[in-house]
Amino acid sequence: MHDRTAVSRPTLEAVAARAGVSRATASRVVNGGQGVRTALVERVRKAVDELGYVPNRAARTLVTRRNDAVGVVIAEPGSRVFSDPFFARHLRGISKELAAHDSQPVLLLVEEAGDYDRVGRYLAGGHVDGALLFSLHDDDPLPAITRRIGMPTVYGGRPGRADAAGDRSLLYVDSDNRGGAREAVRHLVGLGRRRIAHIAGPLDQVASVDRLDGFRDVLIDADPRLIVEGDFTPGGGERAMAELLDRCPDLDAVFAASDLTASGALRVLRERGRRVPEDVAVVGFDDVAEVAELTDPPLTTVRQDIEGMGRLMARLLLRSLEEPDDPAERLPLSSVIIPTRLVCRASA
Amino acid sequence: MHDRTAVSRPTLEAVAARAGVSRATASRVVNGGQGVRTALVERVRKAVDELGYVPNRAARTLVTRRNDAVGVVIAEPGSRVFSDPFFARHLRGISKELAAHDSQPVLLLVEEAGDYDRVGRYLAGGHVDGALLFSLHDDDPLPAITRRIGMPTVYGGRPGRADAAGDRSLLYVDSDNRGGAREAVRHLVGLGRRRIAHIAGPLDQVASVDRLDGFRDVLIDADPRLIVEGDFTPGGGERAMAELLDRCPDLDAVFAASDLTASGALRVLRERGRRVPEDVAVVGFDDVAEVAELTDPPLTTVRQDIEGMGRLMARLLLRSLEEPDDPAERLPLSSVIIPTRLVCRASA
Repeated sequence: MHDRTAVSRPTLEAVAARAGVSRATASRVVNGGQGVRTALVERVRKAVDELGYVPNRAARTLVTRRNDAVGVVIAEPGSRVFSDPFFARHLRGISKELAAHDSQPVLLLVEEAGDYDRVGRYLAGGHVDGALLFSLHDDDPLPAITRRIGMPTVYGGRPGRADAAGDRSLLYVDSDNRGGAREAVRHLVGLGRRRIAHIAGPLDQVASVDRLDGFRDVLIDADPRLIVEGDFTPGGGERAMAELLDRCPDLDAVFAASDLTASGALRVLRERGRRVPEDVAVVGFDDVAEVAELTDPPLTTVRQDIEGMGRLMARLLLRSLEEPDDPAERLPLSSVIIPTRLVCRASA
Repeated sequence: MHDRTAVSRPTLEAVAARAGVSRATASRVVNGGQGVRTALVERVRKAVDELGYVPNRAARTLVTRRNDAVGVVIAEPGSRVFSDPFFARHLRGISKELAAHDSQPVLLLVEEAGDYDRVGRYLAGGHVDGALLFSLHDDDPLPAITRRIGMPTVYGGRPGRADAAGDRSLLYVDSDNRGGAREAVRHLVGLGRRRIAHIAGPLDQVASVDRLDGFRDVLIDADPRLIVEGDFTPGGGERAMAELLDRCPDLDAVFAASDLTASGALRVLRERGRRVPEDVAVVGFDDVAEVAELTDPPLTTVRQDIEGMGRLMARLLLRSLEEPDDPAERLPLSSVIIPTRLVCRASA
């Protein structure tokens, strides 16, 4: 069984042949791409993607050795990373778990999409043993980069890229976003609410799509005017709430895709003279104490174990780094979905 | 002139002799200390500190090469880094400036003092070209670590360690903390306030001591009961304000060492029924919009150019990395003190 993978795995020579370059050039691109013309880099990367080439473990180890360090990339600009307590919690879980194994968390800061090439070069440069990637968007190039350089990677949230869907070796830790959303909406229905709106997260992120799907699972015939896309920030929640009230003044409940989104929605509801929960009930998602307990009124919300997700991501990565070369001896590692639960406070 | 530095610089051999170890052992310790017994590591480090040994540039370059990456260390636990907008701004300045020079900002996360050894090993491991260190406390081992491994370093804030005081090669970017504090206190005096209190920052940080000194420059005979140490957080501001009101119920103004500190003080003043600014005038420090503009009432505060400090730190470091080996060709680089200015809003 384990021989088959070795036989069917495409070689670097096959990549070089398909790209029409020398083996040395293909190797340079696979190991970071420095000193190679952009056009050739593109051709090699295309061949890598088409063949599904993954550098073998021994070759990778030669390049990266053991650094006792793990790269962490949050696919958001620093302004969001440092203003959303979700990320602070996630990183705390990662840091604690890595510290317990004397591994240094190395946060690679990005400000804009153009920074990913540089991040990819750093990851490929042998400075970290593996990567933890989270808050990915559909068009983020990071998964392709870590796959190309053969870097052990664990994702925070189920990756959504079409080309990753069939890849069972892919490891991730996620919350039960769809189940949590269903529970939130059922709670609102149970309170007798009839015009329930949803402020979604950015729909190029799997977690947002899953929460929207959960909303629709319960409200199969939901009026499409009751669904607006937000961006997980308070400002986005304000804009979406204003739009919803303009479109559907008779709405009597809102399920917001994050606590920060809900905090913005609450502000607009107050400005427009709607009482919460009497006129409009509000439910959030996350249960970050710095937000959910401080809103007025305090927020009913779907709790995810954010710090626990971070810890589990780190643990999965550390275990995959310890994996012996002989496939027969490898531990079975698999992705994890963590349950969520509704926490009831005053807003619904 | 420039020959003298080469002659007077202590050699690795001198370090080895003083520590009573082989040159190879001394070299291993200087380059990260892995695989050497703790007792020997300690002896070599002691010899390095006593002799003021700095690895020469050529030797360091062999170890670190050019990574187009800069290590950033904030000497605070993640919980503070991610909840104080000061750090987000500082990092934004650093990231922008490094990005403009295609250099990757690598944030090395620390949770507790025990993590510094691991951070030191990563810095020594040749993964970054230089280091930016900020929010240092008196007992932080980082300056000694970067000096020992000969890593180009720029400090955010004037380093306060006794052994760094005479080192003119040391580069830092700081705000005029003492001048800013003087301006804040003079403003309160000009408003006719007579019982002016000060909530200081942690007094193991130079910025806190400088702000306290500025307060005392103006109020030479200040009642010592009017000075309480805080910790730059809202919770610390609450505790300090409560203590001040218990001690000196007749106080009529507070100069807080940070905006977050002031936000906590405002909350306690409101709870105790004191009107701001009528009964008690309040001035903060930082002018981070996320705090100063949102307090009730909005905060009069000392503005520092936090993002600009980050940019300048990065620029100084990049310039020192470009430094030619011949001392005669080196650009004169020097530390920078950025002016502050008082921004008047409703709280004073």
